[in-house]
Amino acid sequence: MTVKRRRMSRPLVIGGVTVGGGAPVVVQSMTKTDTRDVAATVRQIHSLEDTGCEMVRVAVPDDQAAEALAAIKRRVSIPVIADIHFDHLLALAALKAGVDGLRLNPGNISRRSHVAAVVQEAKPRGVPIRIGVNAGSLPKSAKIRASLPEQMVEAALGQIRLLESLDFDLIKISLKAFDVPDTIAAYQLMAKKAPYPLHLGITEAGLPRTGVVRSAVGIGVLLYHGLGDTIRVSLTGEPEDEVMAAYEILKSLNLRERGPTLVSCPTCGRCEVDLVSLAESVEGRLSTVDRSIKVAVMGCVVNGPGEARSADVGIACGKGRGAIFRKGEVVRTVEEKDFLESLMDEVARI
Amino acid sequence: MTVKRRRMSRPLVIGGVTVGGGAPVVVQSMTKTDTRDVAATVRQIHSLEDTGCEMVRVAVPDDQAAEALAAIKRRVSIPVIADIHFDHLLALAALKAGVDGLRLNPGNISRRSHVAAVVQEAKPRGVPIRIGVNAGSLPKSAKIRASLPEQMVEAALGQIRLLESLDFDLIKISLKAFDVPDTIAAYQLMAKKAPYPLHLGITEAGLPRTGVVRSAVGIGVLLYHGLGDTIRVSLTGEPEDEVMAAYEILKSLNLRERGPTLVSCPTCGRCEVDLVSLAESVEGRLSTVDRSIKVAVMGCVVNGPGEARSADVGIACGKGRGAIFRKGEVVRTVEEKDFLESLMDEVARI
Repeated sequence: MTVKRRRMSRPLVIGGVTVGGGAPVVVQSMTKTDTRDVAATVRQIHSLEDTGCEMVRVAVPDDQAAEALAAIKRRVSIPVIADIHFDHLLALAALKAGVDGLRLNPGNISRRSHVAAVVQEAKPRGVPIRIGVNAGSLPKSAKIRASLPEQMVEAALGQIRLLESLDFDLIKISLKAFDVPDTIAAYQLMAKKAPYPLHLGITEAGLPRTGVVRSAVGIGVLLYHGLGDTIRVSLTGEPEDEVMAAYEILKSLNLRERGPTLVSCPTCGRCEVDLVSLAESVEGRLSTVDRSIKVAVMGCVVNGPGEARSADVGIACGKGRGAIFRKGEVVRTVEEKDFLESLMDEVARI
Repeated sequence: MTVKRRRMSRPLVIGGVTVGGGAPVVVQSMTKTDTRDVAATVRQIHSLEDTGCEMVRVAVPDDQAAEALAAIKRRVSIPVIADIHFDHLLALAALKAGVDGLRLNPGNISRRSHVAAVVQEAKPRGVPIRIGVNAGSLPKSAKIRASLPEQMVEAALGQIRLLESLDFDLIKISLKAFDVPDTIAAYQLMAKKAPYPLHLGITEAGLPRTGVVRSAVGIGVLLYHGLGDTIRVSLTGEPEDEVMAAYEILKSLNLRERGPTLVSCPTCGRCEVDLVSLAESVEGRLSTVDRSIKVAVMGCVVNGPGEARSADVGIACGKGRGAIFRKGEVVRTVEEKDFLESLMDEVARI
């Protein structure tokens, strides 16, 4: 089973990757290096590519950063999106450097002449623009008596109308806040008002331990309701962790597959083996496996055999002995010292 | 803003703690020690209490474990729930030992005479029974042509009918599976069929990194829809981590408060300070603060001032200097070497 029927947004192609229109939800992240440091930025993007990142955003705070984009673009293979605030001239420089997408913040770039200048360069290149609204930087014109979700949607709609009036519709929208229910409400409202793809995220979600939870709840609820064409988990930490968390969210809703899935029980007073260590060892060994297989590591006879059976490969541990399952059949029972190797042998045989 | 209107379940009181009927969502966990080891189990329960655990479940795999419950009960202050499988006599022994609640698995205890014997002892004591259905241990009678959520709900309904026919209604229900959409569907179906409180969880969710995400998405979607009276995050790891993750899920939906909330930006090429270290230091220092305050640590001028303003206390960092905000007002600007201490000074002043 998976999520409710996905909203059909108008698809965009960003540097060869389709976002929206029913395409698989795209995982993206953002570099945290100084963009002017081309080597460091390229290294981080390559590392992100290895983790499964499908699109990367890069901050462009000044002219030197914009100039560095050309060199970065030449050395990476995933689409590069320039993150622009305050100064529309940086967007023009980024377009000249060959970026695949732009993010503009309507809270600080909204003057018609500025946006028109960007559209004039983006349109012939077929480069989409994300209207990236953040609760922390709403336009000064926001109606302060409206709710935060309404203010965010109004900020996006204002920019949508401006872009459409310039005959430009390569649009993607994000509406990020720290408050999860506000963010959910904003996206739900937005989805009814415009056909464009949605980029989901919870902003300033914090350090990994808390940020992952806030992101999983907020992005998870929206995806469950069929909204969202691309996601970015924002964490105060390594961007690779953002990508891994993004895939876990998508895997939990059966929206994407990526690598093995480890099913393991929480252990309890019923468990007679060191299951945590076994699960950690299995996770470590599975990290080199690319296939989307489901491996169960279970500590007792209550749910062990049941869960191990529904996995591709599994072990249900009892005292001193464990039953190895493969596609629903017990293939053998093994002694405790052989739990890890026997399980991995079965994984290798699939 | 918070979640949709909560479902009004029939409230239960378990060892003095109300579950359901609109009461705050109760956070629970389960010990992972050998229950027969009273000292280790009590130590773990005390540690869980410190982390905010409001109710604890303990596995009762044999007579010795059941006997240990009396000694455990005497030394802990949160309600203790006995987790029983296969043998209803262990439930009787647990009741005699004074437990506050029982969990029975209808997949392995469902014979009328057995359940009746348990009800006869639970009812005069006012001890509720959770009908704990797991996808990994469904009753053999489950209709294999039904969907998994339907099979799970059917297993619960069978046991509900049995308990009601014995004139017992101190009932709580859980329907846990590894598959998140299946689990969501099961609870949503169940909520329409019976008035009892729901205990939410995603079972066998795995090691913390992945298990937290699966739990946050599954439990988060259900809570967002107004379902759930108590939650348990299941992780292959320390139970204290389960409790911390549970609170993060509840905090993300504004359903519970617990301690400070750190808002911190993901950093990007725009950031000119070591924000990750600053955020980690602030998190460390906040770990001794009990109040529910919101502290923002922001790396640049884009969303920094906006987010820092909406927090109780915040810092928006620029190159070499940062602005300290308190309740929406800049109270001073400080040099980089003073970021941490100045921010913590403001926290202390609230």
